[in-house]
Amino acid sequence: MPAYPDDLREQVEEYLRTLEFSGRASTAGLREAMSYSLLAGGKRIRPVLCLAAARSTGADPSTVLPLAAAIELIHTYSLIHDDLPAMDDDELRRGRPTSHVVYGEDVAILAGDGLFAEAIRHVCEHQEGEPERILNALGELVAATGVEGMVGGQYVDVTAGDDLDEASLRELHSLKTGKLIGASVTSPLVLAGLGEERMDPYRRFAAELGVLFQIVDDILDVTGSDEELGKPQGSDERHGKLTYVSLLGLERAREIASESHRAARDALAEISGDATDLERIADFILERDS
Amino acid sequence: MPAYPDDLREQVEEYLRTLEFSGRASTAGLREAMSYSLLAGGKRIRPVLCLAAARSTGADPSTVLPLAAAIELIHTYSLIHDDLPAMDDDELRRGRPTSHVVYGEDVAILAGDGLFAEAIRHVCEHQEGEPERILNALGELVAATGVEGMVGGQYVDVTAGDDLDEASLRELHSLKTGKLIGASVTSPLVLAGLGEERMDPYRRFAAELGVLFQIVDDILDVTGSDEELGKPQGSDERHGKLTYVSLLGLERAREIASESHRAARDALAEISGDATDLERIADFILERDS
Repeated sequence: MPAYPDDLREQVEEYLRTLEFSGRASTAGLREAMSYSLLAGGKRIRPVLCLAAARSTGADPSTVLPLAAAIELIHTYSLIHDDLPAMDDDELRRGRPTSHVVYGEDVAILAGDGLFAEAIRHVCEHQEGEPERILNALGELVAATGVEGMVGGQYVDVTAGDDLDEASLRELHSLKTGKLIGASVTSPLVLAGLGEERMDPYRRFAAELGVLFQIVDDILDVTGSDEELGKPQGSDERHGKLTYVSLLGLERAREIASESHRAARDALAEISGDATDLERIADFILERDS
Repeated sequence: MPAYPDDLREQVEEYLRTLEFSGRASTAGLREAMSYSLLAGGKRIRPVLCLAAARSTGADPSTVLPLAAAIELIHTYSLIHDDLPAMDDDELRRGRPTSHVVYGEDVAILAGDGLFAEAIRHVCEHQEGEPERILNALGELVAATGVEGMVGGQYVDVTAGDDLDEASLRELHSLKTGKLIGASVTSPLVLAGLGEERMDPYRRFAAELGVLFQIVDDILDVTGSDEELGKPQGSDERHGKLTYVSLLGLERAREIASESHRAARDALAEISGDATDLERIADFILERDS
């Protein structure tokens, strides 16, 4: 496996463990449910991207930890809601029972809602920097989570029939996963005050990375083992979901993954800072087996 | 009925009708579901409070419309999620079928999630003012919606047994409805840059108003007609919910409502600006019949 920026991941992991949303006894069960999903491990790709993008501009990655944590809180909230019986109805996630299986549907919905609110609150209260830039970075992040992003993509996913064409499938994933991955890269750059010109290769990198991430996900759903995936292999197929693999075949999906990876690396070659961490993340996403 | 600041309500209503979250064809159904709940009418108490609080400081109320709209989006999102089968399982709201009845549970969950994201995005992109104050106002608002507010209160509500005492019932409602009503008053003041000293009577006013609102809600659930309420009368009782009326009796609940109203009016007497609108809202909340 390619080297992953584990120093950044450890910073994220440690920071997430320190978060306290309230000291009130009456909501202890809610906070337990939030932590259960938030501290379930994983590669923390989105917040690590955020720290890596900050480092590529010469900033100390730890200065964007509040923003990075908010991104992971938002990602976690989306997983909890996506797994609900009314949505994808998944009972396993990262090898553990999903939130509603452990805590009930009502608490799972609220754990998701709570993580989203606390994500925004955390940025407002803890992110340092020029207020105007913080506000812009937050705007970039929430735009990626709303109708023009994650929630819109999930809507297309749950309502789409199986007659999607490739363009519609790309739009679905660009909204559902691509936008948040993109904002993980761009929001710390907005915070750093990068102009649009310097931002441009980062935006292209992030867009390719989003596509790459999803295609590899679809490939792994077919080729991975249950144990590696932390959920039953082939679950997309059983859910009747259209994927890059079901639409284009395994071989063509692998080709597109390679092309996206190359395009992502090409975009990185144009940035002016040190892109080592971002390159490693792109390589890892291509080569990962879970 | 006491005079309600209908000029402010009309400003809110008109502004909400202009909101466009995306022009993308693939998410049109999601936006329809969001609008269905958002444009269902009502007194718009929270955004009207926001505009009224701004006016009391001498500001033009229209300058806080983006913030006020965000508050109503958040309130609407909370109603959609509270009505879900896994939560209160309500099929009627303001005389119309609830979101999940019309659009299905999956779309209802996403409509709520989408309204929350777009609320924050709208403030980030459209609220004018000093960025630091906007950030602080947003922080005040989202703190009222998270674990230490609306979501935390809803958690206590769905998990509490029927052995709550009066103190716990007050805590539940202070979180579930009181905090957002409070932030409706205080967030525009933060935006206006009011110091803590001038803010103090407003905070006391908002806290009493939250209590008043909930007690009157509980009284109306027993004394109102189905038609006035827009939902079946007595639904709290059938859901086995503890209310101020079931805990203390109708007479004592009415006394507490009167006391809270008086305390709210007393707090308003201490503010330095023109409190006419805020007084009218307090009177309306006490006297309303739906």
